[in-house]
Amino acid sequence: MPRVSDDRLAARRREILDGARHCFAEYGYDGATVKRLEEATALSRGAIFHHFKDKEALFLALAREDAERMADVAAEEGLVQVMRDMLARPKDFDWLGTRLEIVRKIRSDPAFAHAWAAHNDDLEAVTLARLERKRKDGSLRKDVPTEVLVTYLDLVLDGLITRLATGQSTDDLHAVLDLVEASVRAAE
Amino acid sequence: MPRVSDDRLAARRREILDGARHCFAEYGYDGATVKRLEEATALSRGAIFHHFKDKEALFLALAREDAERMADVAAEEGLVQVMRDMLARPKDFDWLGTRLEIVRKIRSDPAFAHAWAAHNDDLEAVTLARLERKRKDGSLRKDVPTEVLVTYLDLVLDGLITRLATGQSTDDLHAVLDLVEASVRAAE
Repeated sequence: MPRVSDDRLAARRREILDGARHCFAEYGYDGATVKRLEEATALSRGAIFHHFKDKEALFLALAREDAERMADVAAEEGLVQVMRDMLARPKDFDWLGTRLEIVRKIRSDPAFAHAWAAHNDDLEAVTLARLERKRKDGSLRKDVPTEVLVTYLDLVLDGLITRLATGQSTDDLHAVLDLVEASVRAAE
Repeated sequence: MPRVSDDRLAARRREILDGARHCFAEYGYDGATVKRLEEATALSRGAIFHHFKDKEALFLALAREDAERMADVAAEEGLVQVMRDMLARPKDFDWLGTRLEIVRKIRSDPAFAHAWAAHNDDLEAVTLARLERKRKDGSLRKDVPTEVLVTYLDLVLDGLITRLATGQSTDDLHAVLDLVEASVRAAE
């Protein structure tokens, strides 16, 4: 049997992640059964769990991908831009509703909570670094500590995820994000 | 058999709601089985479902109580005060994490989504009315439509619920709420 190349393995891993993302978006965390993950990825459970230890590992790998993508945008363009991207392409963030369903798991499973918090910490760290740069160049408001502004933006992001996940109207949200952006800026 | 008085019925209903609230807080929506609801209320399923058609009706009755209590505070003191109350007494709002778990139900069950949205609409309506009053007396910022400010406050509330439900640090949240409050006020 020929050895499977690294490229092939990476491509397979990619297929699994993409299929699983759709599966979680459609059925939720609990609803994404092994059978449905097989259907969504068109792969056997053996193939899937060769790449990922279990469903939890698969979920956390997707969360990591998101966190990295969001951190890249947040580092360059800020956390508000991350939110604008969500508004512009809600379908891409469809599966984020799953984040809400795992709240109980976060509270009851310390190892999972730890892995989960690590992702959020990364995003907070790049946001903090970006705001510190803005503070130095004078474009950030001076009367509120940077940490508070990070928590504020993080809170708005969580609210946005809830709003998108529950399918509420997004009509006013662009204007809301303008307001949020203005409220961290230095007064003109 | 003597007729059960209205007072007794109301007291019984109260017992069920209080017990169920603790049960949902501890086990989540799906985890709050009939057996656990019986234990939490110290009543039989017959007694419980004499008062509430099913678990969903019980959950919605609790959500209605919250919405009414929050609307009262929001009407008099504003939505930010509702959030300050949450920060001051997080235990009282313990069960709100359940709101996140039902996201999927909201998306997949139109009747449930409708009942759920009605609660949020009430809270939005009183918040809107209060902000309109503040606009008239000149204490509200003038450059952003009132509807946008309501959506903004609603978004922050959702974010706060996520933050409390996932047990994240609340250290900076008082300062965040000061910022939120200032960002809807007219510039001084």
